[in-house]
Amino acid sequence: MRIISSVTAMQREARRWQRSGQAVALVPTMGYLHAGHASLMERARKLVGKNGSVVVSIYVNPAQFGPKEDFSKYPRDLARDVKLCRAADVDVLFTPADKEIYPADFCTYVQEEKLSRGMEGASRPAHFRGVTTIVAKLFNLVLPTIAVFGAKDFQQAAVVRRMVHDLNFPIKIAVAPTLREPDGLAMSSRNKYLTPVQREQSVVLWQAIKHAQKAVTRQALAAARLKDEIAQIVAEKPEARLDYVEFFDPGTLRPVPSVSRGTHMALAVFVGKTRLIDNALL
Amino acid sequence: MRIISSVTAMQREARRWQRSGQAVALVPTMGYLHAGHASLMERARKLVGKNGSVVVSIYVNPAQFGPKEDFSKYPRDLARDVKLCRAADVDVLFTPADKEIYPADFCTYVQEEKLSRGMEGASRPAHFRGVTTIVAKLFNLVLPTIAVFGAKDFQQAAVVRRMVHDLNFPIKIAVAPTLREPDGLAMSSRNKYLTPVQREQSVVLWQAIKHAQKAVTRQALAAARLKDEIAQIVAEKPEARLDYVEFFDPGTLRPVPSVSRGTHMALAVFVGKTRLIDNALL
Repeated sequence: MRIISSVTAMQREARRWQRSGQAVALVPTMGYLHAGHASLMERARKLVGKNGSVVVSIYVNPAQFGPKEDFSKYPRDLARDVKLCRAADVDVLFTPADKEIYPADFCTYVQEEKLSRGMEGASRPAHFRGVTTIVAKLFNLVLPTIAVFGAKDFQQAAVVRRMVHDLNFPIKIAVAPTLREPDGLAMSSRNKYLTPVQREQSVVLWQAIKHAQKAVTRQALAAARLKDEIAQIVAEKPEARLDYVEFFDPGTLRPVPSVSRGTHMALAVFVGKTRLIDNALL
Repeated sequence: MRIISSVTAMQREARRWQRSGQAVALVPTMGYLHAGHASLMERARKLVGKNGSVVVSIYVNPAQFGPKEDFSKYPRDLARDVKLCRAADVDVLFTPADKEIYPADFCTYVQEEKLSRGMEGASRPAHFRGVTTIVAKLFNLVLPTIAVFGAKDFQQAAVVRRMVHDLNFPIKIAVAPTLREPDGLAMSSRNKYLTPVQREQSVVLWQAIKHAQKAVTRQALAAARLKDEIAQIVAEKPEARLDYVEFFDPGTLRPVPSVSRGTHMALAVFVGKTRLIDNALL
């Protein structure tokens, strides 16, 4: 595995791959990798085959964090990440520097204006503008034929797909399933922030999803009612505070008034100061 | 010369070129081509050589017109354009349809936020957002190694260059000089709108540039004073109305208080209802 940190060197290598006509899969990450990321790398390898190249990028993208969010304390451990990528048969680990990604005069942004409005976009203004901008940059630097995203960030995957479609990037988007801890908590680098008590109470996101899944097997239900029930479930955990829960059409991300099978559910919960998200098709 | 109007067919051909490693030059236009465009095509051919491919795109991009501007009456004459492209040794004429470029659910835009603010950006809000968005799309559809723009749209070329740099498009930008009519009027598809009287008075843009060029050969001058003089020159033509005249650093596009050699000048003038622009290095 090679580690490339220069933007120019990465693009040079990418153009070499391009001329050779080989498949290239990109797994964009913010590092502090876990088994969920490893499963994306595994998917990437399957998609491009032995002769293809798998690139993992690690970049904690300041543009997708709000001013009061956890950018500066976001966990970083490159040595550990390198080991995980090596074990996952990655060809290139791309670790660009802030100065190269956002030089002082940087001023061009990519913005998706529909799917990015609700949920994460409503709670985190400018978040998706940061996501689409960095992803567009990474696409142009790595020139992948396919990019793999995790289903835990469901809205992010939908926004990126839309960007690729609207701006005609010649790239396919694959979305790989969320990996979970034994108690159901979705794997996330941010789980590291949790105290043992908070960690225990974090299972509430999964409990909320399970509750909704069970409820809709019997009958369609008013979204407002289900939201109330979920708010109560979350309120039972002293460390937890519901940010939002939404029921929506998985294609358009439009909220639906009545929840039934095929409706998608997403929620964000603060556990202590840590903001966790999860989602599932009901 | 092939004419390709399907987005999918264009991208398929582009990927074929990409794998063959050949140079590809794109000349993006809005059609109704004139000798100025032909000179861009000539430059494109020189840049890619005999074995490279030259693509001319013709697309009147609604996203870069304001609601009260001339989108619907913008001149179109494909048969004439085809002849000009054939004569200019173009390989592919790309003429995509509105429905494919902006499907009903289109919602992703590229925006440059510094160089696009003044001058054309101030007079035509959302213009450059439309320009950067369509250019990003054309780049992803044609996958050129180089793209050629005309110097008449000086600010546009600067904004596109900045977008390419910021978003890391693996594409070089070439800018070819403005072609002029014998009396100095910059060639433009919009000159067609002018009545004979307006056409005669349109020379005022070139007269204004000549005035400034002569003035700065003697000494540096206050921008405010030169602007007044140019306003007077324009006011002498009954059909002409000055939209703006600006003196600025050609690298940053920042207005300068004192004008000297090396300062760049740009102006926009309404002649009747037709808005004409021009610019030059002093």
